[in-house]
Amino acid sequence: MHNFRSYIVIFLLFPLILFAESGSKLWLRFPNVKNGISADKIISKSKNPTLEIAKKELMNYWRGQTVELRTEKSLKNLKEGYTIKSSSEKIIISAAKESGLLYGVYHILRLQQTKADINNLNITEKPSYDVRILNHWDNLDGTIERGYAGHSLWKWEDLPNKISPRYEEYARANASIGINSVVLNNVNASPNMLRTDYLQKVKVLADLFRPYGIKVYLSVNFSSPKVLGGLENSDPLNKNVQQWWKEKASEIYKLIPDFGGFLVKANSEGQPGPQDYGRTHADGANMMADMLKPYGGIVMWRAFVYSPSKEDRAKQAYLEFVPLDGKFRDNVIIQIKNGPVDFQPREAFNPLFGALKKTSEMVEFQITQEYLGQNNHLVYLAPLFKETLDSDTYSDGKGSTISKITDGTLRHAKLTAISAVANIGEDENWTGHLFAQANWYAFGRLAWNHELTSEQIADEWIKMTFTNDKNFLNPVKEMMLSSRETAVDYMMPLGLHHIFAGTHHYGPEPWGDYKGGRPDWSPVYYHKADANGIGFDRTKTGSNAVSQYFPPLNETYGNIKTCPENLLLWFHHVPWDYQMKDGKTLWEELCFKYDTGVKNVREYQKTWDKMQPYIDEQRFAEVQAKLKIQAKDAVWWKDACLLYFQTFSKLTIPYEIERSVHELEDLKKIKLNMGHHN
Amino acid sequence: MHNFRSYIVIFLLFPLILFAESGSKLWLRFPNVKNGISADKIISKSKNPTLEIAKKELMNYWRGQTVELRTEKSLKNLKEGYTIKSSSEKIIISAAKESGLLYGVYHILRLQQTKADINNLNITEKPSYDVRILNHWDNLDGTIERGYAGHSLWKWEDLPNKISPRYEEYARANASIGINSVVLNNVNASPNMLRTDYLQKVKVLADLFRPYGIKVYLSVNFSSPKVLGGLENSDPLNKNVQQWWKEKASEIYKLIPDFGGFLVKANSEGQPGPQDYGRTHADGANMMADMLKPYGGIVMWRAFVYSPSKEDRAKQAYLEFVPLDGKFRDNVIIQIKNGPVDFQPREAFNPLFGALKKTSEMVEFQITQEYLGQNNHLVYLAPLFKETLDSDTYSDGKGSTISKITDGTLRHAKLTAISAVANIGEDENWTGHLFAQANWYAFGRLAWNHELTSEQIADEWIKMTFTNDKNFLNPVKEMMLSSRETAVDYMMPLGLHHIFAGTHHYGPEPWGDYKGGRPDWSPVYYHKADANGIGFDRTKTGSNAVSQYFPPLNETYGNIKTCPENLLLWFHHVPWDYQMKDGKTLWEELCFKYDTGVKNVREYQKTWDKMQPYIDEQRFAEVQAKLKIQAKDAVWWKDACLLYFQTFSKLTIPYEIERSVHELEDLKKIKLNMGHHN
Repeated sequence: MHNFRSYIVIFLLFPLILFAESGSKLWLRFPNVKNGISADKIISKSKNPTLEIAKKELMNYWRGQTVELRTEKSLKNLKEGYTIKSSSEKIIISAAKESGLLYGVYHILRLQQTKADINNLNITEKPSYDVRILNHWDNLDGTIERGYAGHSLWKWEDLPNKISPRYEEYARANASIGINSVVLNNVNASPNMLRTDYLQKVKVLADLFRPYGIKVYLSVNFSSPKVLGGLENSDPLNKNVQQWWKEKASEIYKLIPDFGGFLVKANSEGQPGPQDYGRTHADGANMMADMLKPYGGIVMWRAFVYSPSKEDRAKQAYLEFVPLDGKFRDNVIIQIKNGPVDFQPREAFNPLFGALKKTSEMVEFQITQEYLGQNNHLVYLAPLFKETLDSDTYSDGKGSTISKITDGTLRHAKLTAISAVANIGEDENWTGHLFAQANWYAFGRLAWNHELTSEQIADEWIKMTFTNDKNFLNPVKEMMLSSRETAVDYMMPLGLHHIFAGTHHYGPEPWGDYKGGRPDWSPVYYHKADANGIGFDRTKTGSNAVSQYFPPLNETYGNIKTCPENLLLWFHHVPWDYQMKDGKTLWEELCFKYDTGVKNVREYQKTWDKMQPYIDEQRFAEVQAKLKIQAKDAVWWKDACLLYFQTFSKLTIPYEIERSVHELEDLKKIKLNMGHHN
Repeated sequence: MHNFRSYIVIFLLFPLILFAESGSKLWLRFPNVKNGISADKIISKSKNPTLEIAKKELMNYWRGQTVELRTEKSLKNLKEGYTIKSSSEKIIISAAKESGLLYGVYHILRLQQTKADINNLNITEKPSYDVRILNHWDNLDGTIERGYAGHSLWKWEDLPNKISPRYEEYARANASIGINSVVLNNVNASPNMLRTDYLQKVKVLADLFRPYGIKVYLSVNFSSPKVLGGLENSDPLNKNVQQWWKEKASEIYKLIPDFGGFLVKANSEGQPGPQDYGRTHADGANMMADMLKPYGGIVMWRAFVYSPSKEDRAKQAYLEFVPLDGKFRDNVIIQIKNGPVDFQPREAFNPLFGALKKTSEMVEFQITQEYLGQNNHLVYLAPLFKETLDSDTYSDGKGSTISKITDGTLRHAKLTAISAVANIGEDENWTGHLFAQANWYAFGRLAWNHELTSEQIADEWIKMTFTNDKNFLNPVKEMMLSSRETAVDYMMPLGLHHIFAGTHHYGPEPWGDYKGGRPDWSPVYYHKADANGIGFDRTKTGSNAVSQYFPPLNETYGNIKTCPENLLLWFHHVPWDYQMKDGKTLWEELCFKYDTGVKNVREYQKTWDKMQPYIDEQRFAEVQAKLKIQAKDAVWWKDACLLYFQTFSKLTIPYEIERSVHELEDLKKIKLNMGHHN
């Protein structure tokens, strides 16, 4: 009898120990039960590829009561939303659309997986945004701009004939969290994307994604008519150009009747655009919008524009776009990065939000961690996303949060959308860092319901991805929730920004001053450290970027006494001996912030090491290895920034703080061999 | 008035800030006073080059009362010692020899420099050892075996014509701490050292050193008669060989009448020796001793012999030499490394001490930090030297310390000596690391008086080298005094030894297992980690090296319960879960020791950073930079050893301990580009 028990224990342990666990399953780990419910316990009158998927998921993974899937037109106000009502005998999921039913099925599977009560459900879900879209910055040659999880998932050379099984796995993962749209290619777009042969490849993906409720979009190069069509130019007011786009739209919609539309990066960082012909962004966007309108397509026009002028880079998008307010077509939406610079660890929110009163606005987040340690650092981004969405712009008085502006509740919008740059590649675990899966997950969940808290999302994700065991759940959740602030601390505390090493944006280079290059690509442009202090004066005495914010924020940010300390150096050039709220000087505060960042990462290492008993060895080891790198990098950041800024402050680093282990001159010599492609 | 004061302050600060301070002055920083005592206040009847130096030092640096230098034959029992008696009007230094008077002068200058009372002195000093000798492992091509302070001081190509001013500076530094002998060349000796042209170069150095009381010795290659003299062999019983040595001795003493003698490494690590001809070490040593005897020369014959046999390396010198006890000439002294392996951070003392009852024995220490972080780590060695000297061998009952055995108090010895491998090179600061100067200083001071404590010596050295300011003195002294134990902690705690990377002996390589090479040059030979435990079983169940120790040490060391824990893994193979005295398991203790080492180095960094106000910027910055390297290296050691040993223990590293930042597999790939020459 004793022996028999041992056998059972060994048998139960085997799966944890022996089976490789690459992380390829993401959060989709519903136990594959042979004794799941039988097909006759799934009640559904209609037939449809999306419903077939929903039923298959239930048959494979649902272990509970009978499920009825009801298509109900009366629920169309919920858009792609659904209701779930249950007793212990039966669950009824109702939705106006089949995609809503599929989302409802993933909802109950999630409840089952996270061990929630499923017997007395009365749920109504309506998505926060109509378009919940991932932007892939994937190039046609398979590289990814700012991609840290291997090459592109899209095998353009193999398409349209050879189809990777991962296309459908990708679509399923998106559907499971409510993502319904994808831009397949880089915003720095190749004109070739619109070639007929490529469109035929795109059609294959669109057909694969459609049953999962996902529409395909493309980034387009504004010069396509000239480069691809051989026209004399790409002037949006040129009839030939307009005709070319009209024909191209027609060609696309013949292949892909539900094609979503275009994403356009124009007149930004060297990309062509309407200004090349003396036209405005509105001229360019509207021309395209007119061509897509008959088919229901939309144009997402990016506001990420700046030029090497004397004007503060952080002000330029606002200056460019506010005068165009009201001039855009209904099916144009302006896609605005969360901050006015570029996906920094922390930025003030972008003042364009709320400032375009008659124009649809959408947020662009970055899930791929270009500026947040890439595939090496554990940084859970939901708190960053939430910080932007919850920011009150005061555009229409108190409570004018970015979420309310963009989701259509503050001003009735015909079109609501939210986007983020994907972190997905061909790596077996999809995202490079296992915890980066949580950022894909979090974006999807917030796009569906921006009222979810970071903690709720982390809780769900951990339970689905690893285990429900509280001994794992609680410490790991705590680590995740503090991780973004930790990264800010060891990289760029107190509102510092863009002091990354050039091109790759991985490590620190606060001394970066690229002579002959664009000043606004140099770190020294952003921190402005000198003998007196540090920080970018964006008050009235400086660039006056504060004036782009609605009252009272312009005053709050503009006054050093009321400016939030976590944005202090974003808005102010602050003396080294300035007294912070905790009584420390600015210099001391800066030192302690960096040190705190380092200490926290070391604590994460301890936290994670203690998790070894609760999960599989492979994922444990992978995260452990990444945390080691993060710990070393945090010290690198701390030493580089403090030793460099010390050359200006001339002040002692407080002795409570761990001393540096690097020489500034050695750190300056580090040149990482990293492109900005993977 | 206020302005005037500012000027004074600025003037006083200038020397600290502006004047480069390379450390070239060592501890010889007597302020060069123009208003020192005049020549007529120095009373001395005799004339002699050594006395001239003594007088010059007084004239340049002495600011006190009249000094009388008396040569008194009656004091010959003090050998090179002296007496100092003083009132407020006059100081009388008396000695049998002029060198004793010079030492006495350095004594009062040291008192003046360290701000001691000089008005009521009644001092009698007698050196602990007759021969206080530095072994230079300098090669004729200018490289130094285990040299970390640049190339050799000796410019053989320039000699005998061109004379570096540093030769005399070197002699003065040695005289100031009582060193009276130097072996100029590497124990792995080139036969060319005895070529006539080289001897003429040696003569120049001998002539320069003589006034400072320093005799010159040479390491000789046992094959010299064959290689240099063209004889058929170098068999010590061969009459032609004997004749060759006799003539060589005659030639040497004609050039250098006070030549000290030979140092010989024979039949060790590939060096030739008498065993090549079936003769014993005694045969070889005695033959040479006979040739030197007429001139008063001595032979220092090294006991550092071991061969790749199955016998524990730690036992071999004892097995080789004990049977020869009593067979050596009077002017032969056996030079024995402090431990039976090789200058490890910590070893049990060498069991040969006391075991040779009828043979003179001397210690060989290593000042150059071959195994102690070389020129990067701050490790004050006086505690290591003292640990050996104070070790009780019990050879003649309780109290038979190595110091008493070697200084002639326990057994009347005709010849007493103490040696150490020098850490001196052509670097401007002489020793690579500024704090390595303290190790040269400490060896000299202990050779003069082995009863000095490590703290007394550190106190003197700090005051002379840096400042008397207690704010500097006390923390720096504390750092120095704990530094050797700290290095043991982060390198090889609990009796671990020789787990260094091959050839260069700088970093960790516990996994080192040099297939095809000598097993006893592989780290795995020494730590013997396996699934059961770690450590070298030298008890009766193992190599029984404990049997080479006198009772009760053989039992104390041989019993795991009584063996000192700091030598536990030297003598025992200990189970991972063995309970240590503090209640921790062996594995936990090992982890905490490594962690303590790391933490202590980080504390040294803090300590040193706080010292910035008290000393010059250049020396401050140099030591600061070295401590950064040491801190990184300590983490490297900790990670390498714990991650590697963990592959055997399969135990968790206690969570209180900072997690590793390295991957074992990456650490294994590190190959430092370092030879064992500088």
